Amino acid sequence: MPIADSLTLSEAEIDRLLGDDVGYGDLTTRLAGIAAAPGEIVFSARDALVLCGVEEAARMFARLGASVRFSAPTGLAASPGTVLLKAEGSAGALHAGWKACQILMEWASGVALATAKIVAAAETAAPGVRVVCTRKCVPYTKTLALKAVLAGGAEVHRLGLSETVMLFAEHRVFFPSPDDLKAIIARVRRVAPEQAVMMEVSSVAEALAAADAMADVIQLEKFSPEEIGAVVGGIVKRADGRPVIAAAGGINAQNAGLYAASGADVLVTSSPYYAKPADIQVRLTPR
Amino acid sequence: MPIADSLTLSEAEIDRLLGDDVGYGDLTTRLAGIAAAPGEIVFSARDALVLCGVEEAARMFARLGASVRFSAPTGLAASPGTVLLKAEGSAGALHAGWKACQILMEWASGVALATAKIVAAAETAAPGVRVVCTRKCVPYTKTLALKAVLAGGAEVHRLGLSETVMLFAEHRVFFPSPDDLKAIIARVRRVAPEQAVMMEVSSVAEALAAADAMADVIQLEKFSPEEIGAVVGGIVKRADGRPVIAAAGGINAQNAGLYAASGADVLVTSSPYYAKPADIQVRLTPR
Amino acid sequence: MPIADSLTLSEAEIDRLLGDDVGYGDLTTRLAGIAAAPGEIVFSARDALVLCGVEEAARMFARLGASVRFSAPTGLAASPGTVLLKAEGSAGALHAGWKACQILMEWASGVALATAKIVAAAETAAPGVRVVCTRKCVPYTKTLALKAVLAGGAEVHRLGLSETVMLFAEHRVFFPSPDDLKAIIARVRRVAPEQAVMMEVSSVAEALAAADAMADVIQLEKFSPEEIGAVVGGIVKRADGRPVIAAAGGINAQNAGLYAASGADVLVTSSPYYAKPADIQVRLTPR
Amino acid sequence: MPIADSLTLSEAEIDRLLGDDVGYGDLTTRLAGIAAAPGEIVFSARDALVLCGVEEAARMFARLGASVRFSAPTGLAASPGTVLLKAEGSAGALHAGWKACQILMEWASGVALATAKIVAAAETAAPGVRVVCTRKCVPYTKTLALKAVLAGGAEVHRLGLSETVMLFAEHRVFFPSPDDLKAIIARVRRVAPEQAVMMEVSSVAEALAAADAMADVIQLEKFSPEEIGAVVGGIVKRADGRPVIAAAGGINAQNAGLYAASGADVLVTSSPYYAKPADIQVRLTPR
Amino acid sequence: MPIADSLTLSEAEIDRLLGDDVGYGDLTTRLAGIAAAPGEIVFSARDALVLCGVEEAARMFARLGASVRFSAPTGLAASPGTVLLKAEGSAGALHAGWKACQILMEWASGVALATAKIVAAAETAAPGVRVVCTRKCVPYTKTLALKAVLAGGAEVHRLGLSETVMLFAEHRVFFPSPDDLKAIIARVRRVAPEQAVMMEVSSVAEALAAADAMADVIQLEKFSPEEIGAVVGGIVKRADGRPVIAAAGGINAQNAGLYAASGADVLVTSSPYYAKPADIQVRLTPR
Amino acid sequence: MPIADSLTLSEAEIDRLLGDDVGYGDLTTRLAGIAAAPGEIVFSARDALVLCGVEEAARMFARLGASVRFSAPTGLAASPGTVLLKAEGSAGALHAGWKACQILMEWASGVALATAKIVAAAETAAPGVRVVCTRKCVPYTKTLALKAVLAGGAEVHRLGLSETVMLFAEHRVFFPSPDDLKAIIARVRRVAPEQAVMMEVSSVAEALAAADAMADVIQLEKFSPEEIGAVVGGIVKRADGRPVIAAAGGINAQNAGLYAASGADVLVTSSPYYAKPADIQVRLTPR
Repeated sequence: MPIADSLTLSEAEIDRLLGDDVGYGDLTTRLAGIAAAPGEIVFSARDALVLCGVEEAARMFARLGASVRFSAPTGLAASPGTVLLKAEGSAGALHAGWKACQILMEWASGVALATAKIVAAAETAAPGVRVVCTRKCVPYTKTLALKAVLAGGAEVHRLGLSETVMLFAEHRVFFPSPDDLKAIIARVRRVAPEQAVMMEVSSVAEALAAADAMADVIQLEKFSPEEIGAVVGGIVKRADGRPVIAAAGGINAQNAGLYAASGADVLVTSSPYYAKPADIQVRLTPR
Repeated sequence: MPIADSLTLSEAEIDRLLGDDVGYGDLTTRLAGIAAAPGEIVFSARDALVLCGVEEAARMFARLGASVRFSAPTGLAASPGTVLLKAEGSAGALHAGWKACQILMEWASGVALATAKIVAAAETAAPGVRVVCTRKCVPYTKTLALKAVLAGGAEVHRLGLSETVMLFAEHRVFFPSPDDLKAIIARVRRVAPEQAVMMEVSSVAEALAAADAMADVIQLEKFSPEEIGAVVGGIVKRADGRPVIAAAGGINAQNAGLYAASGADVLVTSSPYYAKPADIQVRLTPR
Repeated sequence: MPIADSLTLSEAEIDRLLGDDVGYGDLTTRLAGIAAAPGEIVFSARDALVLCGVEEAARMFARLGASVRFSAPTGLAASPGTVLLKAEGSAGALHAGWKACQILMEWASGVALATAKIVAAAETAAPGVRVVCTRKCVPYTKTLALKAVLAGGAEVHRLGLSETVMLFAEHRVFFPSPDDLKAIIARVRRVAPEQAVMMEVSSVAEALAAADAMADVIQLEKFSPEEIGAVVGGIVKRADGRPVIAAAGGINAQNAGLYAASGADVLVTSSPYYAKPADIQVRLTPR
Repeated sequence: MPIADSLTLSEAEIDRLLGDDVGYGDLTTRLAGIAAAPGEIVFSARDALVLCGVEEAARMFARLGASVRFSAPTGLAASPGTVLLKAEGSAGALHAGWKACQILMEWASGVALATAKIVAAAETAAPGVRVVCTRKCVPYTKTLALKAVLAGGAEVHRLGLSETVMLFAEHRVFFPSPDDLKAIIARVRRVAPEQAVMMEVSSVAEALAAADAMADVIQLEKFSPEEIGAVVGGIVKRADGRPVIAAAGGINAQNAGLYAASGADVLVTSSPYYAKPADIQVRLTPR
Repeated sequence: MPIADSLTLSEAEIDRLLGDDVGYGDLTTRLAGIAAAPGEIVFSARDALVLCGVEEAARMFARLGASVRFSAPTGLAASPGTVLLKAEGSAGALHAGWKACQILMEWASGVALATAKIVAAAETAAPGVRVVCTRKCVPYTKTLALKAVLAGGAEVHRLGLSETVMLFAEHRVFFPSPDDLKAIIARVRRVAPEQAVMMEVSSVAEALAAADAMADVIQLEKFSPEEIGAVVGGIVKRADGRPVIAAAGGINAQNAGLYAASGADVLVTSSPYYAKPADIQVRLTPR
Repeated sequence: MPIADSLTLSEAEIDRLLGDDVGYGDLTTRLAGIAAAPGEIVFSARDALVLCGVEEAARMFARLGASVRFSAPTGLAASPGTVLLKAEGSAGALHAGWKACQILMEWASGVALATAKIVAAAETAAPGVRVVCTRKCVPYTKTLALKAVLAGGAEVHRLGLSETVMLFAEHRVFFPSPDDLKAIIARVRRVAPEQAVMMEVSSVAEALAAADAMADVIQLEKFSPEEIGAVVGGIVKRADGRPVIAAAGGINAQNAGLYAASGADVLVTSSPYYAKPADIQVRLTPR
């Protein structure tokens, strides 16, 4: 499941990862007098995982002066025991990068795996349904989090507030007639016809009204699968497949199949961002 | 449970939080034509939580031109319904800050709450036992994550590699006699007598050897409570209370009481970093 | 024509504006021995302009220790003589900020004015037609350039490559059947149903094929107004107003009326980014 | 016309160029499923241009994982059809860099070409006259803008406020006797004898007084060629060629010859910064 | 001796000063349980000093949440016991800022004092002689170092390589005739007539040749006062006071008088950058 | 005396070093017309020094497009004449890097040498005594300063306020009983048992009380060697060698032997940070 190599961390973001953990060098190897000894580090999957962050880990080792000998690609579905990354260098360099690289890959691969599980559950229940992840990632993790959800086979729901139109009830209350969805959507479409108009709704009736008002994407917030079914059944799609029905709120690997089977086109989820990290084994030895 | 106001985000980190979500302004309020309408936003706890990140959220609203009317302190144990933050401003500013501030506070408060639960469980089982959090936080979240674990009543285990000595087996293998703990610890103490020497061990025998070698902190990696008890029982503490016995590996709110009761001085955990975010309700309305 | 206050420069971007021009203080006032003398600076429009960048200029003077006494809002259509910004402070501070603020406002207001002229020409010829500006702004000016085109009454075509789908011929050549627009668009819509699909075409026939393939936005690259008319006449819009017909390539204030009258829904232009700066008069005097 | 390789963008500035356009990867190639396909990109001059920014474009492609196969040097006067840059890589990488690199080179080469035209016009009219560009470049473009004017054969008038002395009327009003140019210049020269003292004047009489006061550079603001001639004729240069007569205000390729012929030593201009971008053709194909 | 308020640290530089010393809060006050206790901090001169860095220290305390009650100005010549800065706030905030602010002010005031001593020695020996400091400051300290030398009454020799022309022997060896100073200087003056041309020489003969070649500033590298006298005596100054004779190499407070008396116009020195820090007393108490 | 390669400057810090000195290219070589000429630069020790900063200098030349031909390692004790760094490239690149690299290496090697002298004096007088350097380095130089003191054979006393506990009298005054050292230390140890507790004292009696209170490190502030001896003689060390006796205040190469002989375990010094730069000879020639 290869992803575009155009999504990567900046040099400043690599600076930051190293600076946060080992900004002034590795104290322990220095005091132990072993910093210059040659060594090897091997990262391998302890459990099944979907690999992510490995290119960034490789860049970190290179910055520390170690030589990367092998690097599996982000997106790889690795079985237990699969070697993910190998590097050689001084004990000082390897110890400096060890945990920061491990934490990076474990966290990103955990997000990727959690995503992949939702994708698989959805796909099994309703082939073709799409999983998209929200912008509600952990603060400061945006680039990595996006890379991880892509690695897991999902797509991005919206990157932020500056490039997508999503009308919440909290927008509508600022209109003179908050329930006149037609007027609200027409206003937005008039000033920005190129934009897809997404609207969040909280009842079946609102969903049907949004469809009637020509919303492009109708986001059903915390609907039960049955309610989703009612929306899907009550709407005749336009020739271009719109409105797209997006189910959101509490979707995870356990219930993704049910939501997918309900007839939604898209499942919107934030749950992978808070996934348990993957378990990656590290062997750091002299050579 | 107030924490030092000296732990705060830099201006650049506030820049980043805003830039990541709303770098080019809020598209929806702009297209809806409501950006200039006056509004109010109120954040309140939906469930019990330990508040964190609120000072940073307040700074974000101020940057956006909104006026903060009320702000509860980081560290507050809030019951459901407690108002956490109130701001007034244009709909454009409030919508621009809404989710970024909510996600920030939910994430940080979730970490703080998870920490507080472990602290409470430990304290109940063994008053005086200390909970400390590792450096294994989610990449890029270090400052916020530390603030959150402090808000939850824990302390920091180690900030990174540059300022603490922690001897792992992966260091020992670079010594001619990896099992000669006395020589290894003596070497470190000789070159850096001011440092506390922490050593990770993986068996009761190793723990006792580390004590004999005058380690200051002995970190028991993935020991059962019974094994911890064996270590505690087998060691006579020095007059200054050392060696400190630190239990690590898989400790969470469910088992923290058991680990605390085992006799360890310190429980080392990374689990709060991956906690479920707190649930914070937001009301955004015209005024 | 007020715009959302959520679009603003970061603190680091203000740092940069000052650092680029006056990073080590103002040499001339220092050597002249007049740096501490009290003064006043007044910026006013020499020609008609659409104001932009004034909030940032005000922040720059504040950073330099001057006091801003008056500041007109970004978006203001100012007639000759209109006062835009007034500040008081030491001659050193005022001279330090003078040109950097003037250049900032002149450049941004020039972009805003050029945009406003295109918007006005289009609106006159065909009320309701929309003007949108591309991502092809001058390198490093993105935030300011967007603020300026919004101030001038246009909208954003696409912010960058990461959040919009725009299919060029250069994408199609990587498909097995580059001319099978239906298959190409269907592929994208299948994997990302929430996205609006924009396609650039270079002939009337291609435009009609794109409409048939259910493109959401059809961008006509360098079409004559007559060719645009042929496309508009040859397409039956769907109920939601799609496909949106966007004319692009060489549109400016001179020809915007013609293009607008051709029946396009949207005019896409980069020309304001290279506009002549506005002319702002500065009076800097002792007080 | 090779320029010093010591003028280049920092790593952070390359980070920024990529981040501004493609911070989270290229959405279109990813959704189209073509990101991994091998391709080639070739940039060539459509019209005559003076190349600039190509080294930075090459660095951008390298960051994206593409391989640069050919790169012409900044400063090259390219005729239509000249190949400027070639790179190979995945379609994802090439599409990610395409427009950002094109815009960069078009903008910088447009500035370089506009500069070269002024230089050529001046040189033709008065061999040896020098063209220098002001600090009034587009905000945030300083490094690139300087590189471009150097590529076009001009020099830098002043880099900013911190390193050159330029006395405006707005400085003189802070002196007790604003018209006593001798006292003003003597004061500056006394405290900083190493500095060249530049003075802007607005009449022939003032220019002659500045010469009498031993100014090093006399900047004639918005003088007609005839007035410049009067100044040149009225001044006897010192043995070291001073005062240097610099003509400023509204100089461009059309009138540069006239100004050069007027007898000024230096023509000061900001006009290249707002030049029309060069036209660079791009071919992006599979291989 | 007030200096222009236009020379100041950026927000990012303040971020850095705090981040370097107290990036994750003050551990000691937190563990001691005293972080919230109200306190007061007073900085005063223990020995005579020339104050510098106090504005930046005040900004640091403000960032930490403390309230600055009094702040003397940079440039103040303080006698022992003079209060320099007072702030109130929590013990946590005051301890967090204490040493970072003290070190900042001590270092900057040490540089300022050392500068002032050279200035005074020179002025006493030869009223009107000027002291200028080189670009050879301690890495990363440029802004602060410049502020300090200005505070001490000196000026800046050159800010860096990008804005001044200084011809060393190491440049001349790249010319076909390295000893033809006339040709070399003429070349530079021809391409950049606005620039002052500085030339470093290493013998009296070379100095005289440089004068003959119309250098603007002749920098005598490691000349004895007698040799300087020979140069001064051998040169007839032009009407504008040029060539300026600058003595460089090993000048400090002890020998500045001798060098000044030798007849040089300018003394060039780097010695203040490595000065002993000033001694500032701090009282931090509860209130 | 090799040091861990894990202590290095970030890319942004290299950006800064170049930007500070040569941000817009080297003016002199450009104007002289020699920028493209091929040349060679060789740095060698003029006096004995302990090398530091050479890796960073090499990275700077690489950034400028020069080729590094030889580079000695940080930590090398170089005798006069030893070649430290050689690079080849254009005269423009070599001149651009010359002084910035020289200043960097001279400053860092000066700090390293000063450190090494203290270390040697201490070691000679009392083999095994350790020298540690404080956090009181010159503002903004932290990474380089630490690298230099390590290169000189010392260790780090404390990195900053966030990771070490150091109790000053200024902390104690916030306690109800400032003289009850037992209660104060017990409080800290109770909440953070893993931390080493350092306490600064100002009299022999206080030192003995601190020992009695189980401090881990007792820092004797400005004690005479005799007073240190009294402390050492009055304390019985615990089995793990604690309390460690650290002498601080005014220690330098001249008196380090005396302090070392007094019986202290550790000498704490800031003096190397303000050392005279090393003297490095540079030869820059055509090739």
